[in-house]
This record gives sequence, structure tokens and C-alpha cells, in this order.
Amino acid sequence: MDAQFYLKMFRTVKIASAATVDADGNPQSRIINVMLCEPEGLYIVTSRGKPFYRQLAETGKIALSAMAPDCQSLKLSGRARKVEQKWVDRVFEQNPGMNEVYPGESRYALDAFLIYEGSGEWFDLLHYPIRRETFSFGGAPEEHCGFEITGSCIGCGACADACPQKCISEGTPYKIAWEHCLQCGLCSETCPVGAIRRLHR
Amino acid sequence: MDAQFYLKMFRTVKIASAATVDADGNPQSRIINVMLCEPEGLYIVTSRGKPFYRQLAETGKIALSAMAPDCQSLKLSGRARKVEQKWVDRVFEQNPGMNEVYPGESRYALDAFLIYEGSGEWFDLLHYPIRRETFSFGGAPEEHCGFEITGSCIGCGACADACPQKCISEGTPYKIAWEHCLQCGLCSETCPVGAIRRLHR
Repeated sequence: MDAQFYLKMFRTVKIASAATVDADGNPQSRIINVMLCEPEGLYIVTSRGKPFYRQLAETGKIALSAMAPDCQSLKLSGRARKVEQKWVDRVFEQNPGMNEVYPGESRYALDAFLIYEGSGEWFDLLHYPIRRETFSFGGAPEEHCGFEITGSCIGCGACADACPQKCISEGTPYKIAWEHCLQCGLCSETCPVGAIRRLHR
Repeated sequence: MDAQFYLKMFRTVKIASAATVDADGNPQSRIINVMLCEPEGLYIVTSRGKPFYRQLAETGKIALSAMAPDCQSLKLSGRARKVEQKWVDRVFEQNPGMNEVYPGESRYALDAFLIYEGSGEWFDLLHYPIRRETFSFGGAPEEHCGFEITGSCIGCGACADACPQKCISEGTPYKIAWEHCLQCGLCSETCPVGAIRRLHR
């Protein structure tokens, strides 16, 4: 699926958590609204008085996660930069409820930020088999986590037996259906010859 | 309000975003379930194969945020440590749906983590005036963000006029009702003598 499909899903859900890293290297997270979805990315706003603003402006780094209906979850990690004030006006046009919180000119306490690149994942835990898809936009590489069975596989099937989601199929080597994998790591822990490697750090 | 009240609210909402910092210093966020609330903190689980596990085990740092009904939001930033396997069993007792995802012994692909200290905030954006409260537990200091009007205040009232939430009252000095403050920073930007200082970095 196209990244724009998932970015639009973020905008439809609207309520997301935004994570940043503070000056002490601690993660910080708060609920925000995804204000606009455009071909170039997602727009959010925050006011200059908030720690969120400072962390975002200083690091340019942000992660979002959101819960969509039917136990579908979304996440992305990417980069954001401050954009022109006209985007604050666009946000207020599209989200008129903002005028109750920031009436009149007070809207300009806010700046708009564009999340212009990122890589993310959609995950459906409700249906069996579970399903995940990755996406990326703005030139970020798509990131696959999880595990891969290498050519050292001896075909014993221990991994397939251990898999709680039964997403490993026979073959030479055995193969993990990445899109149905929990990424629990049991296959890798069970493999008697260490043939299953982690795709991420 | 007691911190335990807000920790229980996290558990009631159950769906939260958990933020960590990865090895490259990037924020990462994903949807998780808050599995247990006990006097000593909140319990969560994650499997050893996931990047979330690694980031949590390596840094011990986590931030949660969650959306409660009626536009109330919760957040906290704190510390987590891995706890004994019996807590995985407790989690499965209290959250039997977990058996569908991790049947039988496969539950032990998971480890449990206790968020044993943290400071956080509850925020109600639905009602006027908006309201926030802070809390902390496990010995973490309570963290107040926002602004404070110092003794340099000349009593001109520019801050009170600028405040979108009208939460600044006359006095010597003028005073911000911290619990009703958006933390937008307009008061500080407007003050002609720089008498309003930021409480956080």
C-alpha cells in the first residue's frame, strides 16, 4: 500500500501520540492531533511555550503512533521541520474547533510543523493471521524489523513448531511470512543451529 | 489527586502509546496495552524479538501517553525494569485475550516490565477552563512545565489580555492559574519587561 494511504489513516484517526527526545535523552510523549495530510506529509501544530515545541524544534525528530478502529495500529518515526505561518491558518480552516482553544490572534502562539519524511508500520492484531505492512515517505528507507531464516537452516522445523502465529513454512530454507510475524523472536531462540537472524538492531 | 488514581486511569484506558529512544537517538513509538496497575507501578509486556524490548531493556526509559474518554489525555515519562516471569503469568490471568496471540508456552517469548517511577500529567481539553494536574510516583519529582510571573511584574496586564484561556489574574505580581494554562507562551512573549519565566527547559 502507498504511504499516502497510511498518512491519510493517521489524519482520519486524528488522535495520535507524538514522541520526542528531551535534552536529557529521555523519551517524552503526549497526545496530539494530526491536523492536515498533504502529499508532502503530515502537518501538526504546537505552541512555542511547550516542551514539545522545544524538543521538536531542537531535534527535528518525531515518532507518532495511533490506534485506528478494529485494533489496527499505526506508527512512524521521522523528521519534522517548522513551516510558514500560513499553515497555521490552513490548520484552523480544516479544524475549526481550534478556535475555541486559541481564539482570534492567539492562534499565532502556535507554529506548524511538517513531518516530511518517515518510515512506519501498520499492524492489524484483530484478525488471524495478524498482519503488518511497512511504508515510508519523503525519501526515508522502509524499515523491516523481525527475523529472517538464512541458508544455514537444516530444515528441522523447530522454528515452525515454536511459532505462536504459525507463520513459518517449510522449504530450503524455511521461510517466515514477514507480514504475519509477531516479531516475538521464539523462532530465533529455538533454532538449534542459529540460522535465524534479526533484521534490526 | 494521588498518582495511583492516574495510573489506574492508564490501566482502565488500557491502550497507550509507549515511546522509547533507539540506538541512534531517535524517538520510537508504538501502541501497547497497559496490562496491570499495582501499587508499585504499571506492568507491560513485550517480546524479546522486538525493537521495543531492546530499547526498553537497554535504556530503562519509557514514556506513555493515552487518550481517555471525554478528551482527557494522560502522559508520563519514567523508568522501567524487567521483572520476574511470574508477572507474565499474572498479565495473562488478567488479560486472557493474550492467549489468542501467544498460545500455550509461547507466552514466555514475552518478558514483563514494571514502570516503577515516573512523573506525568492529566489534561482535560474538553471543558472550559481547560484543566491539568501533575502526578509522580516511585520517588520521581513532580514536573511542572509552563510559566511563572516573577517579582519584576509591573502590573500592566498585557499578559492577561494576551492569554487565550484568560487564566491570568491581577495582583502584585499578576498570577497564572497553572492548572488552567495552555502553556502556549503568549504571556511571556507579550510581557514588556520580561517578567515571565519558563518553568522548564
